[in-house]
Amino acid sequence: MATPVNVGMIGYGFMGRAHTNGYKRCPDFFPELRHQPVLKAACARSEDKIQAFADQWGYESIETDWRKLIARDDIDAIDICVPNNLHKEIAIACAEAGKMILCEKPLAMNVAEGEEMCKAVEKAKVPHTVWYNYRRVPAVTLAKQIIESGALGRIFHYRANFLQDWTISEDLPQGGQALWRLDAEAAGSGVTGDLLAHCIDTAIWLNGTVSDVSAMTETFIKERVHQATGEKTKVTIDDACAFMCHFSNGSLGLFESTRYARGHKALYTLEINGSEMSLRWDLEDLHRLEVFDHKDEGALRGWKSVHVSDHGGEHPYMDKWWVPGLQIGYEHSFVHHVADFMKSLDEGKPCGPTFRDALETQKVCDAVLTSAKERSWENV
Amino acid sequence: MATPVNVGMIGYGFMGRAHTNGYKRCPDFFPELRHQPVLKAACARSEDKIQAFADQWGYESIETDWRKLIARDDIDAIDICVPNNLHKEIAIACAEAGKMILCEKPLAMNVAEGEEMCKAVEKAKVPHTVWYNYRRVPAVTLAKQIIESGALGRIFHYRANFLQDWTISEDLPQGGQALWRLDAEAAGSGVTGDLLAHCIDTAIWLNGTVSDVSAMTETFIKERVHQATGEKTKVTIDDACAFMCHFSNGSLGLFESTRYARGHKALYTLEINGSEMSLRWDLEDLHRLEVFDHKDEGALRGWKSVHVSDHGGEHPYMDKWWVPGLQIGYEHSFVHHVADFMKSLDEGKPCGPTFRDALETQKVCDAVLTSAKERSWENV
Amino acid sequence: MATPVNVGMIGYGFMGRAHTNGYKRCPDFFPELRHQPVLKAACARSEDKIQAFADQWGYESIETDWRKLIARDDIDAIDICVPNNLHKEIAIACAEAGKMILCEKPLAMNVAEGEEMCKAVEKAKVPHTVWYNYRRVPAVTLAKQIIESGALGRIFHYRANFLQDWTISEDLPQGGQALWRLDAEAAGSGVTGDLLAHCIDTAIWLNGTVSDVSAMTETFIKERVHQATGEKTKVTIDDACAFMCHFSNGSLGLFESTRYARGHKALYTLEINGSEMSLRWDLEDLHRLEVFDHKDEGALRGWKSVHVSDHGGEHPYMDKWWVPGLQIGYEHSFVHHVADFMKSLDEGKPCGPTFRDALETQKVCDAVLTSAKERSWENV
Amino acid sequence: MATPVNVGMIGYGFMGRAHTNGYKRCPDFFPELRHQPVLKAACARSEDKIQAFADQWGYESIETDWRKLIARDDIDAIDICVPNNLHKEIAIACAEAGKMILCEKPLAMNVAEGEEMCKAVEKAKVPHTVWYNYRRVPAVTLAKQIIESGALGRIFHYRANFLQDWTISEDLPQGGQALWRLDAEAAGSGVTGDLLAHCIDTAIWLNGTVSDVSAMTETFIKERVHQATGEKTKVTIDDACAFMCHFSNGSLGLFESTRYARGHKALYTLEINGSEMSLRWDLEDLHRLEVFDHKDEGALRGWKSVHVSDHGGEHPYMDKWWVPGLQIGYEHSFVHHVADFMKSLDEGKPCGPTFRDALETQKVCDAVLTSAKERSWENV
Repeated sequence: MATPVNVGMIGYGFMGRAHTNGYKRCPDFFPELRHQPVLKAACARSEDKIQAFADQWGYESIETDWRKLIARDDIDAIDICVPNNLHKEIAIACAEAGKMILCEKPLAMNVAEGEEMCKAVEKAKVPHTVWYNYRRVPAVTLAKQIIESGALGRIFHYRANFLQDWTISEDLPQGGQALWRLDAEAAGSGVTGDLLAHCIDTAIWLNGTVSDVSAMTETFIKERVHQATGEKTKVTIDDACAFMCHFSNGSLGLFESTRYARGHKALYTLEINGSEMSLRWDLEDLHRLEVFDHKDEGALRGWKSVHVSDHGGEHPYMDKWWVPGLQIGYEHSFVHHVADFMKSLDEGKPCGPTFRDALETQKVCDAVLTSAKERSWENV
Repeated sequence: MATPVNVGMIGYGFMGRAHTNGYKRCPDFFPELRHQPVLKAACARSEDKIQAFADQWGYESIETDWRKLIARDDIDAIDICVPNNLHKEIAIACAEAGKMILCEKPLAMNVAEGEEMCKAVEKAKVPHTVWYNYRRVPAVTLAKQIIESGALGRIFHYRANFLQDWTISEDLPQGGQALWRLDAEAAGSGVTGDLLAHCIDTAIWLNGTVSDVSAMTETFIKERVHQATGEKTKVTIDDACAFMCHFSNGSLGLFESTRYARGHKALYTLEINGSEMSLRWDLEDLHRLEVFDHKDEGALRGWKSVHVSDHGGEHPYMDKWWVPGLQIGYEHSFVHHVADFMKSLDEGKPCGPTFRDALETQKVCDAVLTSAKERSWENV
Repeated sequence: MATPVNVGMIGYGFMGRAHTNGYKRCPDFFPELRHQPVLKAACARSEDKIQAFADQWGYESIETDWRKLIARDDIDAIDICVPNNLHKEIAIACAEAGKMILCEKPLAMNVAEGEEMCKAVEKAKVPHTVWYNYRRVPAVTLAKQIIESGALGRIFHYRANFLQDWTISEDLPQGGQALWRLDAEAAGSGVTGDLLAHCIDTAIWLNGTVSDVSAMTETFIKERVHQATGEKTKVTIDDACAFMCHFSNGSLGLFESTRYARGHKALYTLEINGSEMSLRWDLEDLHRLEVFDHKDEGALRGWKSVHVSDHGGEHPYMDKWWVPGLQIGYEHSFVHHVADFMKSLDEGKPCGPTFRDALETQKVCDAVLTSAKERSWENV
Repeated sequence: MATPVNVGMIGYGFMGRAHTNGYKRCPDFFPELRHQPVLKAACARSEDKIQAFADQWGYESIETDWRKLIARDDIDAIDICVPNNLHKEIAIACAEAGKMILCEKPLAMNVAEGEEMCKAVEKAKVPHTVWYNYRRVPAVTLAKQIIESGALGRIFHYRANFLQDWTISEDLPQGGQALWRLDAEAAGSGVTGDLLAHCIDTAIWLNGTVSDVSAMTETFIKERVHQATGEKTKVTIDDACAFMCHFSNGSLGLFESTRYARGHKALYTLEINGSEMSLRWDLEDLHRLEVFDHKDEGALRGWKSVHVSDHGGEHPYMDKWWVPGLQIGYEHSFVHHVADFMKSLDEGKPCGPTFRDALETQKVCDAVLTSAKERSWENV
């Protein structure tokens, strides 16, 4: 029998559902793990809403005060799925209470908060991770394996975009229920913390740290109604953000994110160019990795579209699922993250990205926002 | 509280896992349904194997004799996930015992068997369905909705392929554990019943019945070792099958299936051409539907790649999942099928494809095999 | 100085323009050839029209009677760009007059005519070729080179489509000026001779001869106005044609052509599956060849999209054009055909496809039409 | 009879061939124009080389001194196809001699030179144009037409890349015969003037002027052998350049160019996002325009791939070529440019891009290079 890891979930939104599904699928598809999650309690201020969530997903109990949840002896791990401005306080309390922590990204509102959080978990020595889930899309994990093998040679370029189009309408409110990502008070920033943070986490994982950045941000629609007040006020988030950077390995980076790119729902794309091989991937066809291999015979060189669904250890995680050719989807990245967290408990090792890893991303985000404000290059 | 539907699963292979996952996800993602499946019992001859399967997936109990399973009062529905040559006997026993039936495709070994099965379920009036799961890939369901709206105009052509490449090696045995699909005794036919049956079911659903066919089959590797005997014997399945046909609506059909198309793991493609609109889809990018709409402004006409992941009722089933732009995968077709079966119980209506629907596909398969043997056109 | 090859062109339609452009580009891009075409005379019954054509393209003179053209001493080669029902008579007259012949495809109205034509050119020993131009699209030529190297291993499947949509409107007349392809009197057949003949020529070139066929044809719109008479009469061409076949090498073939596939303007696609490698190509992106190579490292296997534009001998014909990455188009296949014909004169060798090669395609076409009529398998 | 425009070509390299082909195709495909080019003389310092070029392409005469060419009375127009550092002197001499000018891009080595050139042609009132040929790829011209119609709504984003991979090898020399683009003395800059200049010209044409920029450049390989000296010296060109910018219309721009992106031969891509519609295009499939139209019915929204080959005026320039579905290639952009220049003479209007238009691009290039050097935002 596996050791149960009793999870207390704080929050019940989009990410609350995605993480919960991850916990529930883990024992079905990764039965060999010696730790397995148990949906012990779900927590939110609204009793009605959290009860409904618990009923739907099968949490054994509910709480309406996160401090009480953390105080419970029957809870081993806390999943922090609340707006960014609450991460720090909850995470530090968890660490002090000796709870494991699975924290939604971005780590914090800024680097200073993130530093405090890192110190807390490192002092408490609690297992923890941050939900930068795209690392565990099999095609992205495969990219990591290829890069680590050295097959790309010297890296020259890295570029990533995260393009959406859901805030183009002027009638969309800023902030409020289900829209806190549009409220700088709750989110810290706009697309930078929400979308670019994903791009930056993957970039650092695949290509190492960033040394300096030059950025620009834009808020296209200057005023919107806020749901909380019903009044039209100045929009303070960034609707779009782009930046150039140098990586420590000497390669150049180019990043862009926006919620105003008509036609793209969630187009996170990345590409890395090495002297010997290039790779590219995008989220709207997440089951494919494109590979250009200069070692291929000259007349037959081209971009290969690899359907990342093979078995026999060829493609990361895929042995656990169906048969070659049958794709998995977005939610599986969370199942893999849960499984890897459980495995890290089996092995007594950290589960990346740790808070310290996520702090690197936070540093880049902060430098980006400063650069955009100051119209200057900023060191990270 | 939803009414529990106690499921007894016979089999534990690839499809056993896929169906079971469908049952488990249904209450998480379709909580509004008033019937919900319960994993009551799993059944197979090997006690060790079925116990391991039950433990992994959470079935409450096991059986090693399907007759005993059917005899249990606490079982409401039987899921038949065994080789094709066992479908008939089990299904008829289920019907006689008043159990609901969820039968893996193809319905039967041939039309005669299928007819008996139809009569049995129609006499017993038990709810039932056949797992032609591709109808419930959202992009395919969307195609159905568009076709039913009449937007395509007069239909001229329908074409479908199902291309795989996993049996090219001469060292692959025929038949035996996990390979019964290569054994004519167990499977009835090769690619015709395994792959083309899927293409035919979707085709009939989308474009109506088939009137006549002309087919060819081929067995590329004439002898293989059989796992059961260790001896090299004649291969009796069809490795490849292609056929031309006329649909009742006057359109032409062209179908092909093979397990010898190097480079294709599971490339089920379909295309339908109407006077006003054409649609195409393929399984290796199952979250997209391609649409050509002649009504579009002339200079801007082109094939549209629709990422079938929108909410607000735009795209079938997708409101239940994540956010626009985030794709689901293969397994979700089974979740949708389970949900639709539960909904059919809520509403007291049949859940297609019924046995009678699946018999139409069987008729085409039989005509195809006869045509290939006789080198003649055969009426369906 | 190159030896001039004085060309007499009969016809001035779409193909007349395409061939003429081929002649004119040859010395610019293939200056090393020791034979080069000269636009000596253009011929058609309408003096006004042929004079305008000659003026536009730079033909030195005109004729209104093809017999006079052939009789001229200053003409070395005749280009036959007239409807199919005139090929035989003109070609035989050319051969008897000792003229070289460049004959538009298909070779003839039927096999009997084609046989006569073959005998005439073989008796007269005149250089000749048939304009199956797609052999000389660089991506297709590259496919030929790869197949000839043996890299594909044992061939299992060949499939080709030629899909168009330009005759869907019921208001389109049949036959008459610029529409003779819709008139069985002039064209011999519909899509079979016009489109499938291309697919068959390439198939035989790439995969060897065809042994037997089973076909179906359809005429979707039964009556149309004929331009010549202004009256609505029965349509006698095939609007669509599909057939299955066996190749002599044991592989299976599947072919389809139609002018009723909404959304496809000129989608000629071909795919060949071997045990070790598969290739596919389509005319609407003719500068790319897709390659799946089973020898690639397992985790990185995928379909490669080769942009056929490299230099240094990597990609056939491309050294003659621009720089890597810059595509050429449809018309270049004719330039290459002219250049290869001139080169064949330099070398004293035949230039494929010869009349005899084209007769093989004619045999398949005839068998296809017979099969469709008789609803039977027909040997080729 | 058309009025002859006697062309004197200076240079015989890649662009010399591309322009010459443009002149030769013009009367074949645009016979209605009342001005038509004549290949009067070709000029270069090497008599052998220019004679061979003239022989191949059919120039009537040669010169080895461009000043003599300009002095000839029988020359109407000069085509400047020499390295960038010679543009100014030749162009001004042409203007003073009253010759028409067709100048290769970029206009000049810098803005100061460009200003002088503008003044010269404006004073002399000679017809002139700059060969930013991509404006006349039909898919790009179609994009212009759509944007001008206002269909895109408010523009938010413009992004363009020009990615190549041909200078990755450390063994490639810098500068010298056929490699002057790698020599800052001759080229002025590296990818900025060579590749980004194209992207900027199209961007300004499609989306209006640029107000400010922030850029970075990189030289990956610091020293290379120079062909002229045989010695290894410091490389002074930019191997890669990226920049962010604001357009005057309030939209954001992101541009990148490199010769170190393994796998891309000539991947010029552009995308523009408006509130109502988005467009994208790339050079490696130049015959397609991708369109996302928010006005499409919700469930059927997607990116459309428009095969820009329709007739009847639907797609710019395409009526002149073959039939729908048959693509043209790279070289046709030059044919169209020649035809439009001839048409501008017919109509007595300027032919864009004029020197003044090209100066706008030069201003952005200069600002980009300054910004990269100063690590600052620069106004244009």
